[in-house]
Amino acid sequence: MDNEILWGYHPVYEALRAGRRTVFTVYVAQGGRNAREKDVIQYARRAGVAVQAKTAQQLTALVGHRRHQGICASVSGYPMVTLDVLLAVAETHRQETFLLVLDQVVDPQNLGAVARTAQCAGVHGVVILKDRSASPTAAACKASAGALEYMQLACVTNLSEALKRLKASGIWIVGADQQAQETVFQADMTGPLAVVVGAEEKGIRPLVRKQCDRMVSIPQCGPIGSLNASAAAAVILYETFRQRNSASGSK
Amino acid sequence: MDNEILWGYHPVYEALRAGRRTVFTVYVAQGGRNAREKDVIQYARRAGVAVQAKTAQQLTALVGHRRHQGICASVSGYPMVTLDVLLAVAETHRQETFLLVLDQVVDPQNLGAVARTAQCAGVHGVVILKDRSASPTAAACKASAGALEYMQLACVTNLSEALKRLKASGIWIVGADQQAQETVFQADMTGPLAVVVGAEEKGIRPLVRKQCDRMVSIPQCGPIGSLNASAAAAVILYETFRQRNSASGSK
Repeated sequence: MDNEILWGYHPVYEALRAGRRTVFTVYVAQGGRNAREKDVIQYARRAGVAVQAKTAQQLTALVGHRRHQGICASVSGYPMVTLDVLLAVAETHRQETFLLVLDQVVDPQNLGAVARTAQCAGVHGVVILKDRSASPTAAACKASAGALEYMQLACVTNLSEALKRLKASGIWIVGADQQAQETVFQADMTGPLAVVVGAEEKGIRPLVRKQCDRMVSIPQCGPIGSLNASAAAAVILYETFRQRNSASGSK
Repeated sequence: MDNEILWGYHPVYEALRAGRRTVFTVYVAQGGRNAREKDVIQYARRAGVAVQAKTAQQLTALVGHRRHQGICASVSGYPMVTLDVLLAVAETHRQETFLLVLDQVVDPQNLGAVARTAQCAGVHGVVILKDRSASPTAAACKASAGALEYMQLACVTNLSEALKRLKASGIWIVGADQQAQETVFQADMTGPLAVVVGAEEKGIRPLVRKQCDRMVSIPQCGPIGSLNASAAAAVILYETFRQRNSASGSK
């Protein structure tokens, strides 16, 4: 993939720390240094990465908007993995394999937020669609607070085929669907598992749904009764976490 | 409170549907009507509310930006309740009282997102701070997808004093804190309860923390290990929901 410009403290800092991408140059705003900027500069210098001071206007011109927080970096493209690599990673976890599959999540903010939550909940890897979906852009990396720098992310052209391959590897496929009778709190979410979450308004597409072994819902109170995509992912991923770790002290 | 302009489909539709505010006039973009616009117009006419067509530019001038989705409304101010009303509401739920307290959550997006999740999880009311905190502005209402139109929201000047009053009413105070030894999955989250969530980076202030009966954390995996405020609230509020409803079939 092509080189790109990351912006914001967390994406730049975590790109340096994770060490998966080549960081060519770190750009920081001229003037007084706050603790975060000092942090990034120190980390970059130790890693032998060039640091250049720029005016705020130059940084804005570099990234195309003002939300750069005074820190940017030119880096190599996002290190996507293949489904084979993801399955190999899954294989090393065996009984605990825990994957997340996103069907047409188009908002980079949602991709970033969900990737951050997934990593906190112990998800080993995320499968996304190549077309009609958000990709791990600089905006997604910012929304993930840098979590995408550590996540194993595989991009596939056909999600049904990808799910078939996961199933062939002994992984159960659980789809999130507000119409499902069984709630995530009632369902067994232990064992090797991939959780499928659909697009913001449309949910999981029928052909993808066909590959799901079961569908689970989140109980909802009140007159609106619809969680946003990021909150729904947090509830499902953490209930999965809870069930998997319930032997070690949770209720 | 003063009149204000709501914008976006969900805030306007739910303001009409909830019926707590006076809706003076609904403004819709001129031209072809999509299903959502027809929905709002029909609802407004049935409720006897004036509907005016405006150009997109006029709507943009009215709200100050372009994110209005072609629908705005002039409405009476947000119907805040007092802590006394919130306690009276809590009293009707007795053993199941479930409140959320936000300490210095400053981002209206976060206030909206958390209020939406809280309502889905069955929270009866939310306490927010008067100063240095997000208030239920039009932007917060948009982020809540209209959920704020139904939520009982009390605004207080002193959170420690408010928590003392909740405790005097027999409500347990549980604070969210990443340093807490006990996780939310280990803690007993049943009974009359108020969950306290702190500011995005700073957490709960010491004087507020002093009023908490217990502190709970969310287990976090991975090198970053920090959920965003909205995801953290989703995990804690839904774990509380799960424990309260576990007699009815969840694990």
